[in-house]
Amino acid sequence: MSNYFIKKEKIRFKHVDYAGIVFYPRFLEMLNDLVEDWFEEALERPFSKIHETNGIPTVDLKVQFKKAARLGEILTKSLWVKNIGGASLLCGFKFEDEEGKICLEGEVTLVNVAFKDNRGGIKAESFSEEMKEKISKFVLS
Amino acid sequence: MSNYFIKKEKIRFKHVDYAGIVFYPRFLEMLNDLVEDWFEEALERPFSKIHETNGIPTVDLKVQFKKAARLGEILTKSLWVKNIGGASLLCGFKFEDEEGKICLEGEVTLVNVAFKDNRGGIKAESFSEEMKEKISKFVLS
Amino acid sequence: MSNYFIKKEKIRFKHVDYAGIVFYPRFLEMLNDLVEDWFEEALERPFSKIHETNGIPTVDLKVQFKKAARLGEILTKSLWVKNIGGASLLCGFKFEDEEGKICLEGEVTLVNVAFKDNRGGIKAESFSEEMKEKISKFVLS
Amino acid sequence: MSNYFIKKEKIRFKHVDYAGIVFYPRFLEMLNDLVEDWFEEALERPFSKIHETNGIPTVDLKVQFKKAARLGEILTKSLWVKNIGGASLLCGFKFEDEEGKICLEGEVTLVNVAFKDNRGGIKAESFSEEMKEKISKFVLS
Repeated sequence: MSNYFIKKEKIRFKHVDYAGIVFYPRFLEMLNDLVEDWFEEALERPFSKIHETNGIPTVDLKVQFKKAARLGEILTKSLWVKNIGGASLLCGFKFEDEEGKICLEGEVTLVNVAFKDNRGGIKAESFSEEMKEKISKFVLS
Repeated sequence: MSNYFIKKEKIRFKHVDYAGIVFYPRFLEMLNDLVEDWFEEALERPFSKIHETNGIPTVDLKVQFKKAARLGEILTKSLWVKNIGGASLLCGFKFEDEEGKICLEGEVTLVNVAFKDNRGGIKAESFSEEMKEKISKFVLS
Repeated sequence: MSNYFIKKEKIRFKHVDYAGIVFYPRFLEMLNDLVEDWFEEALERPFSKIHETNGIPTVDLKVQFKKAARLGEILTKSLWVKNIGGASLLCGFKFEDEEGKICLEGEVTLVNVAFKDNRGGIKAESFSEEMKEKISKFVLS
Repeated sequence: MSNYFIKKEKIRFKHVDYAGIVFYPRFLEMLNDLVEDWFEEALERPFSKIHETNGIPTVDLKVQFKKAARLGEILTKSLWVKNIGGASLLCGFKFEDEEGKICLEGEVTLVNVAFKDNRGGIKAESFSEEMKEKISKFVLS
């Protein structure tokens, strides 16, 4: 069984800069999309529901940009779990081009938070057992 | 003498997400703006000139997001140099709110590259001595 | 007395596309920034306050893109009022380069809305007399 | 035969603003994606090839925003041709929600341009007969 959550994404005109390669903040939008798809498709927690009561802010990010990606290329984005904490999650990720070369890779720490009141403060909240169970399928060992 | 390169930036409507806080890829656009301003204002290498023959791609990024930033807040963005390599540069950065609390901090590695031919390949190119001289004023020890 | 609300904005690396000119959705982010600045600086209704109870969605937009804008150029953005309705506002705008040539111009219709309940529906709400008074200073006749 | 070019797009976290609805410049990125897909999939002119010698800048845009779109909704984006000029193209477009309600609609004028020299000036260039033939299949009468 594969422990990766995988999606493909095409490099579009809006992603590239003057040099014709992806402007790196756009890669992080693509990473956010990957996490969003994972929550909706694999963890059954669509962001459109989560954001009524909770959020999943990114608290730590490490990325190595290894190879430029150009307009028209189709990247394969993979996500997996490196560690599950009480309310936090350490995920690994990599984006590969059509020849399997890594364009970027890194790790991201997400925290589950609950809104304490109407649009005000937030506090960390443990993942439910059911949620941990679903997340654990993506742990790569 | 201060070794920091410092700019202020206001959190705008376009930066914030559904939770009313900055969507983290927008922070990296703000970081790119900071590097761009530093090259133009302090290193006298405006991106509008650089990009005729060279680029400064980001090859490594580490960020810790410590405190959410909200619509209307004015952040102070600081950049400094941790290490100068032949063709690369390791910079530290931090974004602070009006009370001096750190919203995010991290480090970014930039590489000086030259375009080998018309919009095709790139290769690393050492910074000139004049450029290293200017950069060295921002080394924090 | 000038009836224009005027701000300057520099074309940055993040704004430009593969051809080295501003990607047009970025111009509309700049337009949104202009409206945001106008509400805060001239109408004393900062978006950070408005959005607790109200919003100013854009309901109609017409733009003519007349001249490309390049990395490093500084544009002068002007906004004025063409018509004040009960809950709506028709504004004209133009962005000019340093030689006074128009890069884009057009008109945008904004509507004042109130949130009916917690993050649910919205309904149009008339501008207060005080607000109309402030807005009227920007009517160009 | 259908004269519409049609694509679906899901509203993502990165598209929405503080009010939980799509920030309108993001709709125009979605429109640009639609034009990009149309050129690649229906007109056999992928932007990754076009941009070596030509561009398709947007010179005129009219949009009516009729209904907010929320996180998680899937919009159907349709494009058609209203008029083919020598070097220009007037296209209609509409984005509908899952119940067929129009979120936005409008028209956009695109111009075919050739780069006169290396990254310098541009000039309008007529579409080839082959290209006009392909475009004409999307004329709605």
